[in-house]
Amino acid sequence: MSHYPRPILELISQFTRLPGIGPKTAERLVIHLAGRPKPDLAAFARALENLAGNLVTCKECGTYAEKNPCGICGNTQRDRQLICVVAKPQDLLAIERTGDFPGRYHVLGGVFNPLEGVLLEQLRAAPLVERIRRDHVREVILAFNIDVAGEGTALAIKQLLQPFTSAKTLKITKLARGLPMGSDVEYADEVTLSNALQGRREV
Amino acid sequence: MSHYPRPILELISQFTRLPGIGPKTAERLVIHLAGRPKPDLAAFARALENLAGNLVTCKECGTYAEKNPCGICGNTQRDRQLICVVAKPQDLLAIERTGDFPGRYHVLGGVFNPLEGVLLEQLRAAPLVERIRRDHVREVILAFNIDVAGEGTALAIKQLLQPFTSAKTLKITKLARGLPMGSDVEYADEVTLSNALQGRREV
Repeated sequence: MSHYPRPILELISQFTRLPGIGPKTAERLVIHLAGRPKPDLAAFARALENLAGNLVTCKECGTYAEKNPCGICGNTQRDRQLICVVAKPQDLLAIERTGDFPGRYHVLGGVFNPLEGVLLEQLRAAPLVERIRRDHVREVILAFNIDVAGEGTALAIKQLLQPFTSAKTLKITKLARGLPMGSDVEYADEVTLSNALQGRREV
Repeated sequence: MSHYPRPILELISQFTRLPGIGPKTAERLVIHLAGRPKPDLAAFARALENLAGNLVTCKECGTYAEKNPCGICGNTQRDRQLICVVAKPQDLLAIERTGDFPGRYHVLGGVFNPLEGVLLEQLRAAPLVERIRRDHVREVILAFNIDVAGEGTALAIKQLLQPFTSAKTLKITKLARGLPMGSDVEYADEVTLSNALQGRREV
């Protein structure tokens, strides 16, 4: 690789810093880019600069946005007293795509992981408490991944919000567990089936 | 995806234009970049602009270089009368890494593929003929991939250079075929073994 001209080497090193991009993939991408017309490269560079210059973090919910507050937090039609807590902006967008959620969001910016030193202090937990107090939030929906880290985060948040729940001013809920769309009962794993049984609903 | 802020969407669309990067991967990369410090993004953008501004195609051999002619073509120590023909710059670099080749290179810029409209006219074949005539080249080594396209390209080049070979001024050779380093005879495929047998050498 060291035989490449310097501009190629430099761009390869930029690409290898991206998650999941190894040296070989980076080399392939950069060689592809080297063969593209110069205006294409300039457009790519501009898009990167735009990301640096025009993207902000919403002070309310913590998601990526073009303006502050973001479109959702700035929308007075959205229920202030219903907050869906997610780990990252992508999760917010996944829920927003359903078109079924009338409330607001709160992006934690990660999951509770004491083994790697990520405590609630490292996440956007204090601003959540502040919003609950300020807006008299009546329900917080925890929408974390269904895994150990997600469960741990839910527990930590539940403990943190205990003053509100014991005062009966706040309800904490989590996303339902069960069989995903299109699944076969025959092939579902035990935990999913067990969750689906426990969460059964009247028809 | 359409719920993302515009700067994110624009950069995602730039990434999806790269080979092997789908919308989901592009989204993941851009979200990662959105969380990186702004100077990092600026450095990435600069590296892209550098590629557009500082990379040239060597007029002699056709590889990517910082100057024209490239370091290899500008090196008077390298044998002008021995040319290794490769399909793309990456192949040139692979051979250069062996440190075993004293001659020069010629990058065709692709392989002969009449079904997709790639004839010798679309490749850098005419400049090769010109170099052979000008420098009285005595040997051309064809270093193409061992596949149908590589064989076809070798045949087409052989035909093109027929005037030189029949005048006995030029010899055309190709890379040896055989068992790669570290291989087991037991597990080698038939074609490789058959090539290894045909190309056997005295010990």
